[in-house]
Amino acid sequence: MKFENVAVVGLGLIGGSVCRAIKKFNSSANVVGIDSDKEVLQFAKKEGLVDSVSTDFNVASGSNFVVVATYVDSIYDTVEKLLPELRKGCVVTDVGSVKSEIVNKVENLLPQEIHFIGSHPIAGKEHSGIENSDAGLFEGKKIVITPSERSDISAINETTAFWSSIGGEVVRLDPIVHDRVFAYVSHLPHVVAYSLINSVASSDVVDDIFNYSGGGLHDYTRIAASSPEMWKSIFLQNRDSLLESIKTFKLNLEKAESAIKNNDLNELMHILENAQKLKLSN
Amino acid sequence: MKFENVAVVGLGLIGGSVCRAIKKFNSSANVVGIDSDKEVLQFAKKEGLVDSVSTDFNVASGSNFVVVATYVDSIYDTVEKLLPELRKGCVVTDVGSVKSEIVNKVENLLPQEIHFIGSHPIAGKEHSGIENSDAGLFEGKKIVITPSERSDISAINETTAFWSSIGGEVVRLDPIVHDRVFAYVSHLPHVVAYSLINSVASSDVVDDIFNYSGGGLHDYTRIAASSPEMWKSIFLQNRDSLLESIKTFKLNLEKAESAIKNNDLNELMHILENAQKLKLSN
Repeated sequence: MKFENVAVVGLGLIGGSVCRAIKKFNSSANVVGIDSDKEVLQFAKKEGLVDSVSTDFNVASGSNFVVVATYVDSIYDTVEKLLPELRKGCVVTDVGSVKSEIVNKVENLLPQEIHFIGSHPIAGKEHSGIENSDAGLFEGKKIVITPSERSDISAINETTAFWSSIGGEVVRLDPIVHDRVFAYVSHLPHVVAYSLINSVASSDVVDDIFNYSGGGLHDYTRIAASSPEMWKSIFLQNRDSLLESIKTFKLNLEKAESAIKNNDLNELMHILENAQKLKLSN
Repeated sequence: MKFENVAVVGLGLIGGSVCRAIKKFNSSANVVGIDSDKEVLQFAKKEGLVDSVSTDFNVASGSNFVVVATYVDSIYDTVEKLLPELRKGCVVTDVGSVKSEIVNKVENLLPQEIHFIGSHPIAGKEHSGIENSDAGLFEGKKIVITPSERSDISAINETTAFWSSIGGEVVRLDPIVHDRVFAYVSHLPHVVAYSLINSVASSDVVDDIFNYSGGGLHDYTRIAASSPEMWKSIFLQNRDSLLESIKTFKLNLEKAESAIKNNDLNELMHILENAQKLKLSN
């Protein structure tokens, strides 16, 4: 399957990399880039990531495949603004790290002849922005797609073919399962890292602490270094699953706390060995 | 200052590396290795890490400098058993990651003419055991020493000279400050990592989770991979400072939890930006 007319909305690290990757694997494709930031558009045009650029959604009217690569809290609004421009049979996907609310709301918004299949590429880099975009970003990386019961089969196939065509390895998850998995895999670890760093910041030995951060803290500071703007949207979009995982985490933390408080050696060993078992078997 | 007669008790990664390092930097030194495990002693002798080995503490009777490199929960007992063998003027140090209780108890145990200066080398490797020991383990690494008000000046100087002679960069911290700093730098991050991994283990989507651990979870599994035996001793030795840091962490976690629960965008941004500020300024 060839993707000849593609629009990409939101030219950050992921959107920019999608453009570069399409061009790399199919030089005859026509790629339209949409963003609200004119400097970003200029960069995209100058670097040959896209064939044409605009701040206006109407340039997407010729596209058969549309990738919405904005932060999760504006995916719905973006699709809503795109809708009047979209042609019949067009397939829309996104790249958000939270899925069930977006899939549900967007499916309710779209008429039957325009299809939405949620995507979440498990690919990224430490530094964001179009200037760090990379044609090989998706090669060999898992791309989770989250079709629902209402999804059109050919739209699922087309979305799968799209990500495969730029090197991704497509896997399917139910939108709700996706959000529960990524609450644990990614969102909870970030909430925990941010909370840990803020605990350090509020400590009265903070000046000494950063002389010795090799002992375990370093990994957390790396996790907590990513964009607050992006993460606050993710946390709020995945509110229910995230709150559920925080609750489970607090229970486990309190078990450890009690064992330490009560000098309960056996319970403490049990807790630590359990965690190690999981690590080693995976 | 030359260290001609040194005993090292406990030949694991750190103890073994201390032996190798002494031999590397001063080939004429006489190094005695003590351990309860005969296979470990055989290995140490065969590989030339030490000049003689024994399971008996009396071989330390000719030593001027003794390094106790056991887990933190047996440092005091080890010094107690060594005591009848130690000669006047001998300096004893350790390598434990918790200091105030050990320093206090050992100082109360020792007669005036035998000196104890606590040490904590900020050096390690992912894999433990004498077979991973390395003569260069301490080179350029911080070695925290924690003398108290009662410490003998020349014993402090000798301990400093010892670690410097094998490549370490010696820094001084008060034992209580040390324990509060390392509660945040290392012990709390480990409790948190163990708790997080156990939360994942108890989740009903655990099978899916490990297919996607690149998203942040990976760093935690690495932290939680270290020896449960070692960490339970550290947690209990640093009980008070660790419980204090867990309390602070829970407060910060609950702030984040509330902000998510209440969809409080401003508070959430405040929390995330705070954490990032700390990261960037250090």
